[in-house]
Amino acid sequence: MSKVIARIPSGFMELSPADQLVMSKMQKIIAETFEAFGFVPIDTPVMELSEVLLVKAGGETEKQIYSFKKGDTDLALRFDLTVPLARYVVMHQNDIVFPFKRYHIGKVYRGERPQKGRFREFYQCDIDVVGRDALDNSYDAEMPAVIYHVFDELGLKDFQIHINNRKILSGLCEHLSLAPEQASDVLRVVDKIMKVGQEAVTSELGAMNIPPDKVMQIIDFISQKGSCEELIQKLDSYPAQNQLFRTGVKELGEVIRGMKMLSVPAKNYTIDLTITRGLDYYTGTVYETMIDGHEDIGSVCSGGRYDNLSSYYTNEKMPGVGISIGLTRLFDQLKDRKLLSSGVKTCASVLIAPIAERSDYALQLAAALRKEKINVDLFMNSSKFAKKMQYANKIGVPLVALIGEDEEKARAVTIKNMETGEQVNLPLKEAITHIKTHKDKKAETALKIIRFFERDGR
Amino acid sequence: MSKVIARIPSGFMELSPADQLVMSKMQKIIAETFEAFGFVPIDTPVMELSEVLLVKAGGETEKQIYSFKKGDTDLALRFDLTVPLARYVVMHQNDIVFPFKRYHIGKVYRGERPQKGRFREFYQCDIDVVGRDALDNSYDAEMPAVIYHVFDELGLKDFQIHINNRKILSGLCEHLSLAPEQASDVLRVVDKIMKVGQEAVTSELGAMNIPPDKVMQIIDFISQKGSCEELIQKLDSYPAQNQLFRTGVKELGEVIRGMKMLSVPAKNYTIDLTITRGLDYYTGTVYETMIDGHEDIGSVCSGGRYDNLSSYYTNEKMPGVGISIGLTRLFDQLKDRKLLSSGVKTCASVLIAPIAERSDYALQLAAALRKEKINVDLFMNSSKFAKKMQYANKIGVPLVALIGEDEEKARAVTIKNMETGEQVNLPLKEAITHIKTHKDKKAETALKIIRFFERDGR
Repeated sequence: MSKVIARIPSGFMELSPADQLVMSKMQKIIAETFEAFGFVPIDTPVMELSEVLLVKAGGETEKQIYSFKKGDTDLALRFDLTVPLARYVVMHQNDIVFPFKRYHIGKVYRGERPQKGRFREFYQCDIDVVGRDALDNSYDAEMPAVIYHVFDELGLKDFQIHINNRKILSGLCEHLSLAPEQASDVLRVVDKIMKVGQEAVTSELGAMNIPPDKVMQIIDFISQKGSCEELIQKLDSYPAQNQLFRTGVKELGEVIRGMKMLSVPAKNYTIDLTITRGLDYYTGTVYETMIDGHEDIGSVCSGGRYDNLSSYYTNEKMPGVGISIGLTRLFDQLKDRKLLSSGVKTCASVLIAPIAERSDYALQLAAALRKEKINVDLFMNSSKFAKKMQYANKIGVPLVALIGEDEEKARAVTIKNMETGEQVNLPLKEAITHIKTHKDKKAETALKIIRFFERDGR
Repeated sequence: MSKVIARIPSGFMELSPADQLVMSKMQKIIAETFEAFGFVPIDTPVMELSEVLLVKAGGETEKQIYSFKKGDTDLALRFDLTVPLARYVVMHQNDIVFPFKRYHIGKVYRGERPQKGRFREFYQCDIDVVGRDALDNSYDAEMPAVIYHVFDELGLKDFQIHINNRKILSGLCEHLSLAPEQASDVLRVVDKIMKVGQEAVTSELGAMNIPPDKVMQIIDFISQKGSCEELIQKLDSYPAQNQLFRTGVKELGEVIRGMKMLSVPAKNYTIDLTITRGLDYYTGTVYETMIDGHEDIGSVCSGGRYDNLSSYYTNEKMPGVGISIGLTRLFDQLKDRKLLSSGVKTCASVLIAPIAERSDYALQLAAALRKEKINVDLFMNSSKFAKKMQYANKIGVPLVALIGEDEEKARAVTIKNMETGEQVNLPLKEAITHIKTHKDKKAETALKIIRFFERDGR
C-alpha cells in the first residue's frame, strides 16, 4: 500500500515529547501564577463569525486571517485573544462580576509567511482586568507584579519590565503644541527606537513636519535615564504643565509605588520613556519585558491600559488593563539559545520494572504508590530485563523500583536511583516513604525548568 | 456607532466564568490522573494538511470536516485525536520511547447539524499506549484502572466500566461457521443492543441471512450475565474451541485479574458481552463506561485495543490500546442533569478588601500571602465598602481580609469567613497561618467538584 508522508503544514510548531513536557510545565506555571493573583480562566471557540471577529480588522491583519465558509456561515479563526474577550464580556455580562479578572491561555492563528521564529499557530497567555465604567489605576500596578512572578517562577531571574505611560508623551506633544494626529504619529515612531535607533527616529520625526528643535526636545525627553525615583523626580519638575502630562506622571508614580509595595524587586523593572506600544488602542500605562542579555528577542510580555474594550459590541464603557505572553515564540527563542533544560520524557517519579515476568505484586505496588499521589509508570511488556532498564534510561525517570522473586516473597522493593546508581532494598512501607521523599525533593528543584548558562564574568 | 451583536457560531460551547472553573478543574483532574499513570502530554496543530488528515476518511465523517484552502494549501481541522496521534508517532518516532504512553486533551471539530448535546467544537481527552511491533495485553488492564481513577477523582462514584474482547464474539461467529464479512456485521449490529433492544438486533441479524438457530445462539451468548468470575467460568467451559475464541477469553481473564491487582473496586466494572465498539478498527479488548442511573447518556469513556495505528503512514507495525473521554458532551450532560456544583467565580482563597481607601498595607499583605502559595484577589477600586463586600459575595470567595486604619496601625488583619459570617482579628503572622489552614481544608473538599444529588431510597 502506498503511504502518505506523515507531516504537518509549514509554519506550525509541534514538539517532541521531551520538549512538550517543558512547554506544558511552562503553561502550568503561568496558569498557576495568574490564579495566584485571582484571575479566572475563560475558554472561547477557536473560530468566530467573521462579522463579529473582523469588526475592526483591516490591512495586514485581515490578510493573515484564516477564514472560510461552512454551509452559509462565514467563519474565521481568532488571531488574538483580545477580540474574543471583548465579545465575551458583552455576551456574558450578566454572569460576570466586575472588575472581571480573566486569564486565557489559548492558540491563535495568523497565516504569516513562514519564517524563522514566526508561527501560524501560536499560544498567547493573556490576563486582563476589565471594569464597568471605571477601573482604578491601582490595577495597573498589579500587572507588572504578575509579570515578575511568572518569569521568576519560570526560573528566568534576569529580566526587566519596562514601564511607561502614554499620557506623558502625549502631554509632551501637547506642551510642544503639536496637532493630535502628529502626537499619534510621534508615539508610533518613538516606539521603534529600540529597533531602529535614535538617528532613524530623529529623521522620521523630522520628515513629519515637526520643527527640528521640537524633535530634539522629544529625543532628549525620551532619552532620560535613571532610577525610577530619579526619573519620577525629573518628570515632576519637567516644565510641561498640561493636565495630560501631569496625570501621566501621577499614574506612573502610583504604579511604581504599587509595585514596590507588592514586593517586586527594583532590579526587575525600570521606567522607559521610549516605549508606547505603538497602537492608539492603549491610553495610559504600557509595559514591555526584556530578557537581560537577550534584548534582541524583543519584548516577551507586553500590554497596557485601554479606555474601552468592547466599543464595537456595546455602548457601555469597559476600561481595562492587560498583558500578553507570546508563549510559542518565547519557547522557540529560549530553545534556540539553549536556555531550556529538557531531555526527560516522563512525568513519572518512579518506574516499576518487574525483573523476570510481569507480576501481580508490581501492579499492587503501583496502586499503593498512586494512592500516595506518586506518579508511577509500570513497564508491562514481558521483555528482557535489559530492555526494561533501557526504557528507564531513555525516558529519564529518576527512580526504578525493581521487583524480583525475592522482593515479591519478602514484600520488599529494591529501589535504584538512576542519577547516582545507588540501590537500596526496603520493606514495602518504607519503600513507599523513600520514593515519596525523593519525589518531593525532586519536585522542588524541578519547578525551575529554565536555566541560564553561566555567563562570563558572573 | 452601530454595533455588531456579540455572539458565537451555533453548535459551539462557551461557558460562563462559574461553569468554566468547573470545566477547568475537570480538565486538571483528568490530566493529573493521566500523569499518575505515567502518560506524557502531546499537543498537535488544530489544522492538518487535508491529504494527511483525510487519508482514511469518507462518508459521514468527510462531510463533517471543516476544510479550506489557504494560499495553495488544502487544510482541514482535526476531527479526533487518533489520526493526529498516528501521524505524530511516525513523524517523531526517533524522539519517542516505545511503548509510548501519551495523553492529549484538545479540541476537535465536526460540522454536525446543531442539536441538543452535539457540539461542533468539543474536547476529547485521550490516552493511548503505542508499542513498536508488539504490546503486551497487560496494558489493556491499565486502561480501565485509569478510567476508574479519573471518574473517582472527579467525584463520580457510581459508574460502571463495561469490558469485553472482540475476539470472543468473532470466535463465536467462527464456531457458528459464519463468513468473515458476516462476523464483522454481527459485531456491528450486536453493539447497538443497548440502544435498540434485543428484538431489533434479533430481526436485523435474521435479515442478514443468518439461520434463526444461530441468531438465537448469538443472542443467548451475549445475554449471559453474572459476576466477572462467573462469566469467565462460563466462557471457559463454553463449547467453542477455536483459537480466536480461546485467546479472547484468556485476554479478558487477564484484564479482569490485572484490574483487581490494580485495586479497581469490583462494583465499578463488569464483563458485558454485548459491547464491541462497532468499528473493525478495534481488534481485542473494548471498553465503555456508564454512569449508574444515567445509562441513557451513553458511554462517557470508551476505547479499546487495535492492531495497527499508523498503517497509512508507515509499514512499521504499531499496535496499541487507548481510551477517550468526550469531555464537552459529558460536561453538558452533567450540567443538564444538575450534577455539577458551580457558582463560585474565583480561584482565590481570600479577597483583601481595604475598608476605606486602598492601602499600601493591603498590597504588602497580598504579597506576603502569595509567598505562602495562597491565591489572593485584591479589590483595588476605591469604591464604597458595601461594594467591596458585594464583590466578595458575588465571586463566592471563602474568606475576606478586612484592612482598616486600626488593622494597618496594629499590623493585624480582620478575617471574615463568608460562609459562617464569623470574624477574627489576628496579628499579621497568625492571620497568614489562619488563611493557609482554611485554604488547605477547603482544597480537600473542593477536589470533588461533581456531586450527586441524594437519590430516593439510598
